[in-house]
Amino acid sequence: MQPIWLSLLSAFCLRLVFLCRAEEGLEFPNFDGKDRVLDISERNYKKALKRYDLLCLFYHEPVPANKGLQKRFQMTELVLELTAQVLENRDIGFGMVDSQKDAKVARKLGLEEVGSLYVFKDDRVIEFDGELSSDTLVEFLLDVLEDPVEMINNAMELRAFERMEEDIRLIGYFKGEDSYCLCLMRFIHSFNKTPQLHPPPANHNEILACCMFQVAKHLSLKMNEVNFYEPFMEEPAILPGRPLSEMDIVEFVNQHRRATLRKLRAENMFETWEDDMDGIHIVAFAEEEDPDGYEFLEILKDVARDNTNNPELSIVWIDPDDFPLLTTYWEKTFKLDLFRPQIGVVNVTDADSVWLDMSNDEDLPTAEELEDWIEDVLSGRVNTEDDDESADDQEPDSYATEDSSEGQDPDEEDDSED
Amino acid sequence: MQPIWLSLLSAFCLRLVFLCRAEEGLEFPNFDGKDRVLDISERNYKKALKRYDLLCLFYHEPVPANKGLQKRFQMTELVLELTAQVLENRDIGFGMVDSQKDAKVARKLGLEEVGSLYVFKDDRVIEFDGELSSDTLVEFLLDVLEDPVEMINNAMELRAFERMEEDIRLIGYFKGEDSYCLCLMRFIHSFNKTPQLHPPPANHNEILACCMFQVAKHLSLKMNEVNFYEPFMEEPAILPGRPLSEMDIVEFVNQHRRATLRKLRAENMFETWEDDMDGIHIVAFAEEEDPDGYEFLEILKDVARDNTNNPELSIVWIDPDDFPLLTTYWEKTFKLDLFRPQIGVVNVTDADSVWLDMSNDEDLPTAEELEDWIEDVLSGRVNTEDDDESADDQEPDSYATEDSSEGQDPDEEDDSED
Repeated sequence: MQPIWLSLLSAFCLRLVFLCRAEEGLEFPNFDGKDRVLDISERNYKKALKRYDLLCLFYHEPVPANKGLQKRFQMTELVLELTAQVLENRDIGFGMVDSQKDAKVARKLGLEEVGSLYVFKDDRVIEFDGELSSDTLVEFLLDVLEDPVEMINNAMELRAFERMEEDIRLIGYFKGEDSYCLCLMRFIHSFNKTPQLHPPPANHNEILACCMFQVAKHLSLKMNEVNFYEPFMEEPAILPGRPLSEMDIVEFVNQHRRATLRKLRAENMFETWEDDMDGIHIVAFAEEEDPDGYEFLEILKDVARDNTNNPELSIVWIDPDDFPLLTTYWEKTFKLDLFRPQIGVVNVTDADSVWLDMSNDEDLPTAEELEDWIEDVLSGRVNTEDDDESADDQEPDSYATEDSSEGQDPDEEDDSED
Repeated sequence: MQPIWLSLLSAFCLRLVFLCRAEEGLEFPNFDGKDRVLDISERNYKKALKRYDLLCLFYHEPVPANKGLQKRFQMTELVLELTAQVLENRDIGFGMVDSQKDAKVARKLGLEEVGSLYVFKDDRVIEFDGELSSDTLVEFLLDVLEDPVEMINNAMELRAFERMEEDIRLIGYFKGEDSYCLCLMRFIHSFNKTPQLHPPPANHNEILACCMFQVAKHLSLKMNEVNFYEPFMEEPAILPGRPLSEMDIVEFVNQHRRATLRKLRAENMFETWEDDMDGIHIVAFAEEEDPDGYEFLEILKDVARDNTNNPELSIVWIDPDDFPLLTTYWEKTFKLDLFRPQIGVVNVTDADSVWLDMSNDEDLPTAEELEDWIEDVLSGRVNTEDDDESADDQEPDSYATEDSSEGQDPDEEDDSED
């Protein structure tokens, strides 16, 4: 959109540089410099909505006067431009909506959160509140384009469905030849568009809806019944009532949206993080591909299963492998070693945190020990404020903590740097 | 390194732009503009090798005169600079080696492939020949820093080990209190450094070495025995001989490095792609998180297990989810729909390809059908040359193919665009 494009053209040509490879077949895209992202205004927004199967609008603050911030703004545009280029053959439109200049359009379209990307598909709106990189965005949009309903036709596909334990899953059994699935599909579409329901509708892929035919018996699913699987739960909840209205399902899912154990994912990381529990998150770091991490994650799942009915509890699981660029930031911010599993409480307003001591290499805590610690967190006995002064300054009065420090061993203060 | 840094400073500030979030804890790093990447020369390379735990050298062609290519070069530097910044507290050095200007240093250090990054750790050299992005590079280097040997102490950790089916895995059983693991660890270190062996030593994480104590019985592992698991194989091969010399293990792994089914991964994608079979790859696309994709992958694993002793066969499995920016490129280049599983033959010199017809939505091919098709590929009956003319131009003589076209149904020519 501006001449600076030209000097930034190759901002995404970061791969395959100087690699005079003889082989073909793995060429990462370079931004070709063509403008594809629209400047949305009152004049063109209706036309844009009509023209594309999918319209993605980035809702942003006014372009700042500060030059550094301007460059960041251009970089955001570049992310969108590269995404638009990569998805060029998919009939997806991209645009920018200025929260000040285009306030009226934003109101009409229902855009609310500055910094979010809104995807319009048919009469649905899906909010993207994840990592604003072309990788994540392309993956997200390709997912949106895919049919949200999977048919589960055989035991192998059922196994695939059962493996998707990180997602909220709905599975239903409906009759009717070719259209036996349409029913649930309509539910889901409806679910995604309901603008009157708040918190805003799910990211499309928090819900994986499945329906099947032969497999129903195996799952003891009755006709027109819908089962709801919370992430990491083995046993589903059966939605009350049969047949269910669309609103029944929407309401049930909204009520059960926040899982007892939820995985942080690039495509909705900010949405997850904003959904804190009274200003804190219980955060667990565990590398699933590492034996220790895997073991710890299994313990976490046990804890989540034992406490699935506690609405006060929601643990955010972060696999450091998914966020390489954040790993050292987290280690620094939280003063942690992320080569090992960790669990702690993070205050989301200042990123202050306390972490469970698991320095004994041999033994991870048992599920029971973890539950005791979690109880201490939920009751406030373990909290991020107790050690604030001793961290901020080393004056003698720093030992007088704000809250009662039962459960904190003062002798451990000196060892805390170990 | 150059003033253009300044105008590109925010090339990596692509995230969190204009997002006035109240929450803390998820801040992606912005490049701070500080130079950390060294210009390596005869004068400083020895010092650099001594100074850092890990030294990463990017071996590149001379800086081009062409301005566009110059910008790409600067972008590569930026990737390294951001990586260096993110890993600043890890004692890792970064440098650039010019293949012309620093030819002598390159020779001394054993750098061979222009466009590769070489990691020096102790007396080992590890080549990185993957996607040159900060995400991938940071993840790779954090992995290199981790202890290459995992202790398998209990059933849960053994399960984690068994789940790592995408990797080449070695597991051994050694006695000796605290040091019961050192033995294998030395083997692996040695394995990684052996410069006399070609093809060059493995990426560190192609080998996951494990040793354990209690679990040996469960695996029927004898003292000093080492088992080798090829990716996706359920049954290990037992390394012949006991006790094994380091060279025994190195040779065995080198002989069995190319798996019958191997997953394309960002961290060594070019290395994998370069290791073609007579100029072609059998490529399978399957999304593991999709029921169809999962089912197809399971069939592929069956085929691989049935044919594990066929040195002519190596299938490259690509999960499109791992490469969002390449998905539409592949769809265009190979004329495929990647929302569905696919398998085909790709000629790596020109990316020409033929794909198995799996357009029948209901049924994936059985393992037997796949094996028949693979046999046709290996015998040359199915190949990428047969349809070249009809793809390149539509002249009548295009039906006269280069090779005998037994097994190709000429009636299908007209349907090929469906």
